[in-house]
Amino acid sequence: MRDVHVIGAGMTRFAKSTKSLKELAGEAVVDALQDADVTTDEIQAAYVGNAVAGLVTGQEMIRGQVLLRPVGIGGIPIFNLENACASAASALHLGWQSVATGIYDVVLCLGAEKLTHPEDKNRGMAAIGTAVDVELAAEMADEMAEQMSGGTESSQRSLFMDLYAGWTKDYMQRSGATRENFAQVVVKNQHNGARNPRAQYGAELTVEEVLAAREVVWPLTLYMCSPISDGAAAVVLAAGKAAKRANGRVPRIRASVVVSGNVHDQSDPTAGSSARAARTAYETAGIGPDDIDVAEVHDATAPAELMIYEQIGFAEPGGGGELIASGKTSLGGTQPVNPSGGLLCKGHPIGATGIAQICEATWQLRGDAGDRQVDGARVALTQNGGGWLEGDSAAMAVHILTAS
Amino acid sequence: MRDVHVIGAGMTRFAKSTKSLKELAGEAVVDALQDADVTTDEIQAAYVGNAVAGLVTGQEMIRGQVLLRPVGIGGIPIFNLENACASAASALHLGWQSVATGIYDVVLCLGAEKLTHPEDKNRGMAAIGTAVDVELAAEMADEMAEQMSGGTESSQRSLFMDLYAGWTKDYMQRSGATRENFAQVVVKNQHNGARNPRAQYGAELTVEEVLAAREVVWPLTLYMCSPISDGAAAVVLAAGKAAKRANGRVPRIRASVVVSGNVHDQSDPTAGSSARAARTAYETAGIGPDDIDVAEVHDATAPAELMIYEQIGFAEPGGGGELIASGKTSLGGTQPVNPSGGLLCKGHPIGATGIAQICEATWQLRGDAGDRQVDGARVALTQNGGGWLEGDSAAMAVHILTAS
Repeated sequence: MRDVHVIGAGMTRFAKSTKSLKELAGEAVVDALQDADVTTDEIQAAYVGNAVAGLVTGQEMIRGQVLLRPVGIGGIPIFNLENACASAASALHLGWQSVATGIYDVVLCLGAEKLTHPEDKNRGMAAIGTAVDVELAAEMADEMAEQMSGGTESSQRSLFMDLYAGWTKDYMQRSGATRENFAQVVVKNQHNGARNPRAQYGAELTVEEVLAAREVVWPLTLYMCSPISDGAAAVVLAAGKAAKRANGRVPRIRASVVVSGNVHDQSDPTAGSSARAARTAYETAGIGPDDIDVAEVHDATAPAELMIYEQIGFAEPGGGGELIASGKTSLGGTQPVNPSGGLLCKGHPIGATGIAQICEATWQLRGDAGDRQVDGARVALTQNGGGWLEGDSAAMAVHILTAS
Repeated sequence: MRDVHVIGAGMTRFAKSTKSLKELAGEAVVDALQDADVTTDEIQAAYVGNAVAGLVTGQEMIRGQVLLRPVGIGGIPIFNLENACASAASALHLGWQSVATGIYDVVLCLGAEKLTHPEDKNRGMAAIGTAVDVELAAEMADEMAEQMSGGTESSQRSLFMDLYAGWTKDYMQRSGATRENFAQVVVKNQHNGARNPRAQYGAELTVEEVLAAREVVWPLTLYMCSPISDGAAAVVLAAGKAAKRANGRVPRIRASVVVSGNVHDQSDPTAGSSARAARTAYETAGIGPDDIDVAEVHDATAPAELMIYEQIGFAEPGGGGELIASGKTSLGGTQPVNPSGGLLCKGHPIGATGIAQICEATWQLRGDAGDRQVDGARVALTQNGGGWLEGDSAAMAVHILTAS
């Protein structure tokens, strides 16, 4: 296996955008190619992650070809990957694999998503609801409706917020983590988002303000739920001679792991797909949780970030609340998490998120992260989960990168 | 690169089915695992092709996980691939790549599609129409409507039949191929389908009967258009020690090529994605067109088979009509094409077709093809195209297999 480097990264601002999916994808790709200083002709294959274009824009089947043609990329192998919110990380994994094994020297990995629809506000939300077994979900609909405790209409929130609320209540019971802890995650990620020009949201909030916000579904307030976002992110991967950049800063992918979920007991943070993927990644890279300088993780809700701390070994089981309260995962702490603002504040255009995390890791490891730079970041971890299937994420990806 | 073998193949009958996509996929997977004599625990990764489940069944995002869970496959990496009618071949290619490069020893590749919908007859047909740039198609809708010359309502046929009709008219002009030649393709493939228990259609027809059938859009009659089908096909790929079978018959993948289309002049059969993919496959395998004993090609319409003859080097440019008329591509001829019945008669559940072709190639090379066996078949070629984008297929796959 050859060393694979990220030689270029590009990303749109994440936002509720009036731009089309084509425009967003094109912007990210052009940025990544320019950053890598490669031309479209040098790209030997493309791996494209998208989750819901078929349901939101009507473009199914050949999404990558349609997105890449306007920027002049065609003829090469193009693979369209779908793994719910882990679509982009899955595309990245296959791109990494093709370069690591010597099939190609230079590939493009793109994640792009448009969740907003000009005429149908609920379309994106409804599409997100297909990241489960839709037959089972239909059977469970009555039961789930009864379980819903929030004061808002279900059409205004994703099915996933109800799922997360359930997991969160279980998590509070077994860990002692509190709603204040969840609010602390929001305060941190909003603070970080305010330092990220590509983030959808960012502000200086207090724990009290977060708790006082509209309740989506108890115990989650609006600030604790990742927003509906549009956006795209792209990276160029290369090995060997092609992995040179004018400035020499080409972070190296030390581990790329994708797994699918097993049925498991949610109360055991070491049993699920996230912990399993992280363990394999650490073993592959010969790197442990304590070695990670900066992490971008899948905080689709604020409490999820705390659970992930435990799953990736940043905290002992039940220690997520204590870790956020300690400030260690804040910018300026010993192990900052989600300096980009995370899904909560950078935004979560679902099929783009996995590669957006890699963009942030790349910029952090290159020292290019501006006001949100983690000082001396040399080792980064990203964790990106997708979908839900009877007790676990349907897809889970963990990547570890080093500065060179 | 290691030698990769097909150690098991399984396939449902293709048909308008009352079974669910889960049932169809499960049936094909269980068949393939039994044929390979491997257990679900031995499968290290799965690559799943599907094109329209999001639009037809509502299941987007995690299709493979949802299909594989009921047969007991989970935990492993599962990748959902989409490349229109070449979705399954794309999944196969990535599975092949992962075994050839030593990432895994045993993988599952599945293609599954359900185009019929119990309540909405037009849903599958409409979904197929997303295998183009849907924005461009919307812009072109008026123009295309004017071009339509058929006597049937557009809702009763796919956009692709109109596209194929246009290409066919051009092809007739430049090659001299006639509607009788197209009918000869149908007669051949119907004859073959009648010998394939998994084929949707099969009968002994005459050229006159084919020409007298209802016109879909001139010059295509109903028999010249591939049907709406449901079905699934799966193969188990392996290398090294894992590539042993009790009976020793494990066809080897000698070339696996996927490309995307470039804008090109349709009148030059050597310029498009199909010819390009075939040339690369022949070079990789060190095998030429004359060495192919049997081929399964993408006869989405009858005239397409003639154009493909030229693209894959079975005939000179313009020689497709002459080749079908010669009988060489019939069962019993020197170079049979589509012994399975092809897309026209075996059926075309679009996201399953690419792997169904590999199943047929496997059975032919093992001597397991029953009444449609090509005597002494040692070398097989499959060609599977998907989607359309400004002058060429959006995705194109060519595979070459040998008996061992």
